[in-house]
Amino acid sequence: MTNICYLVGTAGSGKTMLTSALQRYLTSKGASLTIVNLDPAVQHVPYQADVDIRDYIDYDRIVDEYKLGPNGAMIVAADLIADYITEIREDIEELGESSAVVLVDTPGQIELFAYRNFSLRITESFPIDSSLLVFLFDSLLVSNIAGFLSISLLAASVQIRLNLPMTHVMTKIDLLKPNQIETALTWRENPYDAIEELSGMAREFSLQTGQLVEVMSEIPLLPMSALTGEGLELLGAQISRTFVAGEDWLI
Amino acid sequence: MTNICYLVGTAGSGKTMLTSALQRYLTSKGASLTIVNLDPAVQHVPYQADVDIRDYIDYDRIVDEYKLGPNGAMIVAADLIADYITEIREDIEELGESSAVVLVDTPGQIELFAYRNFSLRITESFPIDSSLLVFLFDSLLVSNIAGFLSISLLAASVQIRLNLPMTHVMTKIDLLKPNQIETALTWRENPYDAIEELSGMAREFSLQTGQLVEVMSEIPLLPMSALTGEGLELLGAQISRTFVAGEDWLI
Repeated sequence: MTNICYLVGTAGSGKTMLTSALQRYLTSKGASLTIVNLDPAVQHVPYQADVDIRDYIDYDRIVDEYKLGPNGAMIVAADLIADYITEIREDIEELGESSAVVLVDTPGQIELFAYRNFSLRITESFPIDSSLLVFLFDSLLVSNIAGFLSISLLAASVQIRLNLPMTHVMTKIDLLKPNQIETALTWRENPYDAIEELSGMAREFSLQTGQLVEVMSEIPLLPMSALTGEGLELLGAQISRTFVAGEDWLI
Repeated sequence: MTNICYLVGTAGSGKTMLTSALQRYLTSKGASLTIVNLDPAVQHVPYQADVDIRDYIDYDRIVDEYKLGPNGAMIVAADLIADYITEIREDIEELGESSAVVLVDTPGQIELFAYRNFSLRITESFPIDSSLLVFLFDSLLVSNIAGFLSISLLAASVQIRLNLPMTHVMTKIDLLKPNQIETALTWRENPYDAIEELSGMAREFSLQTGQLVEVMSEIPLLPMSALTGEGLELLGAQISRTFVAGEDWLI
């Protein structure tokens, strides 16, 4: 059985830093991990990847060969992943069998994972009940109600598209004041008072969006800093509950 | 008065092609246009940009200077746009005054426009009632209900974030069969029957998402192909209704 955990979030939300921090934290708790990098365009990662899409896909060569700029090259690189699904699945399964958890760091730009087709071919390779999607709420976006609703809708969009169990984390909270974190967590439970303050077009879907956020509040939203380590324990416990029913790591 | 129309959509959804097709179409109808490219990382555009962010920001130099990969360089390039807001606004205003419409082609990756802060500083520079956001539904995503709901939620996310009047277009319909276009338009009016077929996690928010899509159906969703020109007339008429109350273009 392969327990697989995908870290997904907008560009700059801190996926790679969180992968690295989680690796250190879970390893210190005795969990043996497999780390997968699925971003063909990343230049440097702060962890040692056990499976690395860059072993199959050479982004710089795509730039040269197809004479593409970075936008086009990223799309081509992401779509080329589909050609190596069998190999990647085998690599992950082989290492995953003897690991407590496989952590998957996804492409920098969320839309390459959320809305291109290769990602479904990977996620559908593994059973839903041993999969978890960790969706990152970038702190930069949660300090006002419009940003908070907007990123909540993006989370719902990704959940419907990838169809996996999800947990949410609020990243880089070292950049927020304590009351900003508190306010965002309050909106999660009751967005309606804040929605009243919205004006213009943002009000148009506000009632339905509020209801969506309210339903979503059943999913934990864990404040976290990969820099200070705050919140890692909660996320570790959440992953442990998902995969080993909260028991100590067996592998 | 500057009438400004932003084309926004996921990577590969066809923003640049639609900008170019719209330019040709509206010009042929007698409208004088200003074309703005806001993507610092694009290598080639098929139109002559009147205002070009690449005159201010050199993506290749960012790659070299900051020693960044494409993900990081794109974020830095997008965030650097904030330093040139005054210049860009002045450029747009100066040309926009004597144009019927300003068409703005946004960065390739939607999240750079939707979720970084520079974009609000541009959109808030112009009055809401002379602004229009054209959101692109990529045909690749609308051929199944999960993809359709997912991209609808993304559209709502962008609307709440940018807070502008919106119209929706379904791009690249030359890649779809006629019945696929018809089905997507049916979902737009009534998503509930199709939602019944969803399973697993995708069902979790399905009722609320259905309600959101139903409210959204008041916004037109115009099927379109920049390749064949199909649908351009409808979008042109929509833009004309927004900016010149459906009258002939005066400028």
